[in-house]
Amino acid sequence: MKKIEHIGIAVKDLQVSNKIYEKLLGVPSYKEEEVVTEGVKTSFFQVGPNKIELLEATNENSPIAKFIEKRGEGIHHIAFDVEDILEEMERLKQEGFVLLNEKPKKGADNKWVAFLHPKETNGVLVELCQEIK
Amino acid sequence: MKKIEHIGIAVKDLQVSNKIYEKLLGVPSYKEEEVVTEGVKTSFFQVGPNKIELLEATNENSPIAKFIEKRGEGIHHIAFDVEDILEEMERLKQEGFVLLNEKPKKGADNKWVAFLHPKETNGVLVELCQEIK
Repeated sequence: MKKIEHIGIAVKDLQVSNKIYEKLLGVPSYKEEEVVTEGVKTSFFQVGPNKIELLEATNENSPIAKFIEKRGEGIHHIAFDVEDILEEMERLKQEGFVLLNEKPKKGADNKWVAFLHPKETNGVLVELCQEIK
Repeated sequence: MKKIEHIGIAVKDLQVSNKIYEKLLGVPSYKEEEVVTEGVKTSFFQVGPNKIELLEATNENSPIAKFIEKRGEGIHHIAFDVEDILEEMERLKQEGFVLLNEKPKKGADNKWVAFLHPKETNGVLVELCQEIK
């Protein structure tokens, strides 16, 4: 684990929240991107070596729609930057963590991603991500 | 905002979670510290330029006890490292954010800290922190 790559925040309205986070962080969003397979529109802010990712659901079956329905808006996941995602997935499996996807999948912001089940991590949804070269 | 200083995670049992996060992050906790005024015991892990802070309540009136009662274990707050906490508090007040403490208070890990009300930040509890010199 090299650093916190980003924190994902579930929001109801990306355009409204873009304005809020621009004021909070003092910088505008540098990128908006839809991830059709996940049912989300995303917006990214750079904060030094880290990012904030806002996520809005694009349909009612999206994990983000379900999250907001259950808990309201708020922090959805922590993503860690890893050197080698396959190696890290294997290491974590050996340590007893449960992976939500067996193979890395293509996420937002040019990344291979994989998620760990939150039941082994004190209720925290952990994402691993590695830049696609 | 210079970077994400740390992510705070509310846990029921610090010793149990220390072992989990040592496996997850591949490094042991580098420090445990009690913050009596906040009713918490904390444990810190370094991940590159960032930290993970685990928080266990030391009494039932602790904000962490209330958080876990309401939502279960999970991500409690994001802390941003700032250059000048007084200046940043003033800037955010001007932008319409509500501060939970009017003056910086002494937090864990040798920091001045201040919190923003989550209602203006899409349900996210935001902490500002500045190293005490």
